[in-house]
Amino acid sequence: MSAIDPRTLRNAFGTFMTGVTVVTTRDPEGKPVGFTANSFTSVSLDPPLVLVCLANSSRNRSVFAEAPGFAVNILSEGQKDISNTFARPVEDRFEAVTWRDGPFGAPVLDGVSAWFDCSRHKLVEAGDHVILIGKVEAFDDSPVPGLGYARGAYVTPAMEARALASQAELMVSALIEYQGEVLLIPGDDDSLALPVARVGKEGVSAALAQLIAEHGAGIEPGFIYAVYEDDDAGCQHISFLCQAAEPVSRHGTFKTLVPPVLAKIADPAMRTMLERFAAESRIGNFGVYYGNQVSGKVRPIAAGSGSQ
Amino acid sequence: MSAIDPRTLRNAFGTFMTGVTVVTTRDPEGKPVGFTANSFTSVSLDPPLVLVCLANSSRNRSVFAEAPGFAVNILSEGQKDISNTFARPVEDRFEAVTWRDGPFGAPVLDGVSAWFDCSRHKLVEAGDHVILIGKVEAFDDSPVPGLGYARGAYVTPAMEARALASQAELMVSALIEYQGEVLLIPGDDDSLALPVARVGKEGVSAALAQLIAEHGAGIEPGFIYAVYEDDDAGCQHISFLCQAAEPVSRHGTFKTLVPPVLAKIADPAMRTMLERFAAESRIGNFGVYYGNQVSGKVRPIAAGSGSQ
Repeated sequence: MSAIDPRTLRNAFGTFMTGVTVVTTRDPEGKPVGFTANSFTSVSLDPPLVLVCLANSSRNRSVFAEAPGFAVNILSEGQKDISNTFARPVEDRFEAVTWRDGPFGAPVLDGVSAWFDCSRHKLVEAGDHVILIGKVEAFDDSPVPGLGYARGAYVTPAMEARALASQAELMVSALIEYQGEVLLIPGDDDSLALPVARVGKEGVSAALAQLIAEHGAGIEPGFIYAVYEDDDAGCQHISFLCQAAEPVSRHGTFKTLVPPVLAKIADPAMRTMLERFAAESRIGNFGVYYGNQVSGKVRPIAAGSGSQ
Repeated sequence: MSAIDPRTLRNAFGTFMTGVTVVTTRDPEGKPVGFTANSFTSVSLDPPLVLVCLANSSRNRSVFAEAPGFAVNILSEGQKDISNTFARPVEDRFEAVTWRDGPFGAPVLDGVSAWFDCSRHKLVEAGDHVILIGKVEAFDDSPVPGLGYARGAYVTPAMEARALASQAELMVSALIEYQGEVLLIPGDDDSLALPVARVGKEGVSAALAQLIAEHGAGIEPGFIYAVYEDDDAGCQHISFLCQAAEPVSRHGTFKTLVPPVLAKIADPAMRTMLERFAAESRIGNFGVYYGNQVSGKVRPIAAGSGSQ
């Protein structure tokens, strides 16, 4: 709790996420005027009303208070520049945007998520601001996601959601071997899997090191054994062949890869890789695999290892 | 543009992103009451005023219109359930939340981004809603990011930004060779680089195929040549050794990896990899590399390739 300190209060107000609007009208000489506002809210559907708050200290106050109407333009996620232009002391703010007159006469901007061209319905004095209530005379919207604002910074959740959805997920798995047996972790439904971890910003090596450390001491991270993508899950996997000093682990158990064990590996790509490992173990010659969850190619590697 | 159809108008209103609040008070019997609202806005700093709109059809209307005050709770990103509870006909909405009395007497919820406990300042009739204007008597905020709402769905931009920031970026590069020469792309400042592309949900193989296709026909995607992480940039790189049928490309040129050419490779990890390639080309024996941008290990692979 705080005493009512304006700066602290402003920060607390800022926790409420908002869209960003540019509110426009024409001054008595017909010149377009406008300002950036996030203190907008829809009020009523029937009659259709919206409101926006305007500071009494604003140089636009009298123009908007006396105008027959105003338009509210809901900025879209790519319109940060327009928000900044209409928030700063710019000589001609409208020079920087493409706009037209709305049906009721206030300027409507191109490329917005929605606009509402309003007649003046009511003015309400409220402290250091005036609440402009407008009656929507005409409006339109588009599917373009809106620009947001929270705690003093723009937010573009739709853009970030698209970026997240388009990004490949990188997974690392450890094929931890001890004298032909492999460490397998029990899952649901009696299934088995290799230890797997998602790779974050820390990188593959660090993710592998942490994955191994979870299973106990004496496990040495080894070389890449397979790089494959799971197209269905949109995941990229990198598997490492690692050596254990003894067949014990905090989780899971070391098992010989006989067919009944392999049959319990739920992930088909992982199962194929372990079938290859079982076959290669018999002949003592290991390769590096590259492909996807159904097919790929293997390059045998020399038993010794160079380094650089 | 549309005629004023309430359903279309509601959708257009929904393009404006908002936070989500739960507005609370106590009824004349002292029972806590509350409802979910996103039609909140801060109005004035001095005096400190906020407003929220309440439908005339709401069963809470008379309670809130007659109460001496109300609290606005700005929900945080993890409080979707609370938003749903206070938006649905639930017998005792307060049973599902942890709350206490605010300093001015209205219920304040735990874990919110901010709360404002208000005295009633003014009521403004506005169409099918009433605008409750409250004077902030006490408030508090927390660093927890807020819950958002846009076009009928919750948004959590801070959560998505954290997920994006924590995700490893996966890059694919093509070491396209023709008789010992390698295709290099000119960059800024007279620098050179291998063709590189970011890997999205389409996966490494598809990204490599597209990268190669951009450079012309007759280039065969080959096997993994290096897997390395760039810890500085938080990127994971997978490089493929590919063969060109002829030394021509739409972009860049094929060059022999002599020291003056290698010196122009701006990325140190890429330069190290190409130095290895130059050395391996001389002895005709190629390996697979794994490491980070400064060190790693190479496993020589057999010249022939198996497949599965």
